[in-house]
Amino acid sequence: MFESAEIGHAIDKETYDAEVPALREALLEAQNELKAQARFPVIILINGIEGAGKGETVKLLNEWMDPRLIEVRSFDQQTDEELARPAAWRYWRQLPAKGKIGVFFGNWYSQMIQGRVHREFKNAQLDQAINGAERLEQMLCDEGALIFKFWFHLSKKQMKARLKALQDDPLHSWRISPLDWQQSETYDRFVRFGERVLRRTSRDYAPWHVIEGVDPHYRSLTVGKLLLEGLQAALKAPTEPLHQSVAPLGHSLDGKGLLDSLDLSQQLDKDDYNDQLVAEQARLAGLLRHKHMRRHALVAAFEGNDAAGKGGAIRRVAAALDPRQYNIVPIAAPTQDELAQPYLWRFWRQIPARGKFTIFDRSWYGRVLVERVEGLCSTSDWMRAYGEINDFEEQLANAGVVVVKFWLAIDKDTQLERFEAREKVPFKRFKITDDDWRNRDKWEQYREAVEDMVDRTSTEVAPWTLIEANDKRWARVKVLRTINEALEKAFKKDK
Amino acid sequence: MFESAEIGHAIDKETYDAEVPALREALLEAQNELKAQARFPVIILINGIEGAGKGETVKLLNEWMDPRLIEVRSFDQQTDEELARPAAWRYWRQLPAKGKIGVFFGNWYSQMIQGRVHREFKNAQLDQAINGAERLEQMLCDEGALIFKFWFHLSKKQMKARLKALQDDPLHSWRISPLDWQQSETYDRFVRFGERVLRRTSRDYAPWHVIEGVDPHYRSLTVGKLLLEGLQAALKAPTEPLHQSVAPLGHSLDGKGLLDSLDLSQQLDKDDYNDQLVAEQARLAGLLRHKHMRRHALVAAFEGNDAAGKGGAIRRVAAALDPRQYNIVPIAAPTQDELAQPYLWRFWRQIPARGKFTIFDRSWYGRVLVERVEGLCSTSDWMRAYGEINDFEEQLANAGVVVVKFWLAIDKDTQLERFEAREKVPFKRFKITDDDWRNRDKWEQYREAVEDMVDRTSTEVAPWTLIEANDKRWARVKVLRTINEALEKAFKKDK
Repeated sequence: MFESAEIGHAIDKETYDAEVPALREALLEAQNELKAQARFPVIILINGIEGAGKGETVKLLNEWMDPRLIEVRSFDQQTDEELARPAAWRYWRQLPAKGKIGVFFGNWYSQMIQGRVHREFKNAQLDQAINGAERLEQMLCDEGALIFKFWFHLSKKQMKARLKALQDDPLHSWRISPLDWQQSETYDRFVRFGERVLRRTSRDYAPWHVIEGVDPHYRSLTVGKLLLEGLQAALKAPTEPLHQSVAPLGHSLDGKGLLDSLDLSQQLDKDDYNDQLVAEQARLAGLLRHKHMRRHALVAAFEGNDAAGKGGAIRRVAAALDPRQYNIVPIAAPTQDELAQPYLWRFWRQIPARGKFTIFDRSWYGRVLVERVEGLCSTSDWMRAYGEINDFEEQLANAGVVVVKFWLAIDKDTQLERFEAREKVPFKRFKITDDDWRNRDKWEQYREAVEDMVDRTSTEVAPWTLIEANDKRWARVKVLRTINEALEKAFKKDK
Repeated sequence: MFESAEIGHAIDKETYDAEVPALREALLEAQNELKAQARFPVIILINGIEGAGKGETVKLLNEWMDPRLIEVRSFDQQTDEELARPAAWRYWRQLPAKGKIGVFFGNWYSQMIQGRVHREFKNAQLDQAINGAERLEQMLCDEGALIFKFWFHLSKKQMKARLKALQDDPLHSWRISPLDWQQSETYDRFVRFGERVLRRTSRDYAPWHVIEGVDPHYRSLTVGKLLLEGLQAALKAPTEPLHQSVAPLGHSLDGKGLLDSLDLSQQLDKDDYNDQLVAEQARLAGLLRHKHMRRHALVAAFEGNDAAGKGGAIRRVAAALDPRQYNIVPIAAPTQDELAQPYLWRFWRQIPARGKFTIFDRSWYGRVLVERVEGLCSTSDWMRAYGEINDFEEQLANAGVVVVKFWLAIDKDTQLERFEAREKVPFKRFKITDDDWRNRDKWEQYREAVEDMVDRTSTEVAPWTLIEANDKRWARVKVLRTINEALEKAFKKDK
């Protein structure tokens, strides 16, 4: 993997000086075009051997291009806000918006390689991290991002010479490399595990570029040209990514569906409801202040037919709690800032810290429901969303977040009754819009989308719960009970 | 101040039950109107005596209204990200957007009263904090926010009884009040300093409401009605706030202006430039990695005539540094999310943590420059901006942020030369837009705005530096030298 980056590549000063002006001009032009199109972000990952010119190269890129459109992010120590959330949160919060370039020093690769080098975990866990990185990058590319991955390399001999030179240079001595790099074993392990990582994560959509770091002219020119070529190609690409033709999702041949199998006639009488509601609310209040909750967070996503009673169910959940513990996030059309980011960014923004509870009133499932049915995204966009969402929820679960997801189901007649009732009550009229009536006409399409969604995203770590919601009392109690059971199950596992 | 909140106000259950349904309905309607107008945010500050029903009331408001449009924020321990920035940053980052309601538990008032009660500082500092709060609220109200300030009160006897009752209640015993409330002296000091704070911060635009907290019916109904009345009045108010007629800014009678007094002929020859540039860059690099920098952050704001060379000067500053240390923020038209917040919010977002450096390419001064000249805000908006900006910068300075501000000045002929030169170079053409030519026609209006700006916002803590920029070399070196001197001055004071 690294052989050809240890052979002493070099470019003489004259060639360098002759080539740089045109390269700079072209890079600047590409950068302005990137900003003007504002169609995709550029993410540059910087990794490799200590002393191989990572920092110098990034500095140079900032000089060559317009630094106002480059965001350089270094990920050192996690802050306490980052430590209280899933590991990827720190990267999501720093993603560059469309039209910008983000340079990530100390990204997910350095984190996993460092961890393995220092024996914090074994290869099996390294491979898990590798798979996670692959899925993240695949998703970012599918969302349009252009990713460059640079590995700056030095042979062991070159590195030792370089560290020595840096140490002797008064302008650099303040930046003495971490002590462990002085050790021969660190280099060996770093290269060994680096090789494993590069081998598995070099993909057509985000290949690694291994750059020999000894000669500054060589490495600078190489990086600059790779960037330029990649940028120009992406800027010329058609506005819409070319979609592979997508095979349709199969459906059950006997016409039976999951939603049909629900017994919507289930109900609770008023007394049972009052007793059970109070009991479940007290149980939830107790669970959320349980000491185990310090290791967990709670996320509840509410989806359902229009007028199925999401708002009412959410209010019954909230009523159990101290308002300082929870946060309700209503999901509407994305804002400008949100549209400039990958689809899941707006949800990552809202992920609760440990000990907290976030309720999503509609959720990331909009991608495979309304966006699918209304044609707001392409078929391949919503098709790949199933996997992306499963990844997202698995990351939450791995970080101790308990994820519960509800589909509140009513039948078509019940919906009609409720629409008509709402239109009669002045202060409820705002709840019914033309959109609701239009959605109703697409009842069958939504049913299909819901069934596909549940089939593909009901997982062990984040199962769907279908709620029979023709009877609001039944629905509210079942929602609360489901949350309570999920928390108790998670707490039990802690022991 | 608190006398009438110790007389045992109470409302019987029947009256309460009879009044609540209509109140709830009206509150819900007002809340929906608030969301529909999305014209202003509502900020509810919750303060007062322990056990007086603060938490219960907020919980009730969440039940009565639509909790999806209420954001409850509690400010307990500062996170390390908050501790690394000016104190107010934590409040700015949690401000509700227009159309939303934000409930602030543990806000600036609790912080200052707690501090004084526990003898962390004396009255003089308390009064400074009070003045800061006043200015913050004045600004929020001028930006359209509707602020409610509730003080929940109990007499000492009532409080003791209440704490006892809470302790005996199994449903509440988990929430035993902080130990210090058990002490009689804490109550006395809390009430004494609370009285001082309320007395000085009850203003027409944001008055305090003292609520006796003993009887839940009384306090709930009182708060609900106050909220409703305030909301309804604000929703009915004309879209544009009524502006007091604003006295014009006076100008010097002899026609002499600050910008005329600049000697724009100053220049540096190429050799001097190269020497001095390299020297100042090295000095800056050294200062930013100086150990004193750990206590400071650096903010540089660049303003200037179009084509005055802001971008070039910023690049020369950046070139001195490791890209991980700085962040360049180009200021363009505000996004949707930014428009939903007070004017200064987008700049607060970007305030660097200690040890870091943020460069603003254009800045908050847009308010008194382009927005003033182009009529993008009302006269009273930009008139009050001078004071708001001085407050903002003083807060930065008090937190150790070194603030430097540059106006890069060129004359009209030089601008014309540069515009024409840019239009000839293909990869610079993007830098010239129709806007630039239009701005040029308003040269005199901009000159007036700049002179007013410098007169009113060049302060000891954040002085303006006018840069003679006809000669780019002169300008770049002066910019770097000014930053270096400001840092050295700040470091000297640390000793």
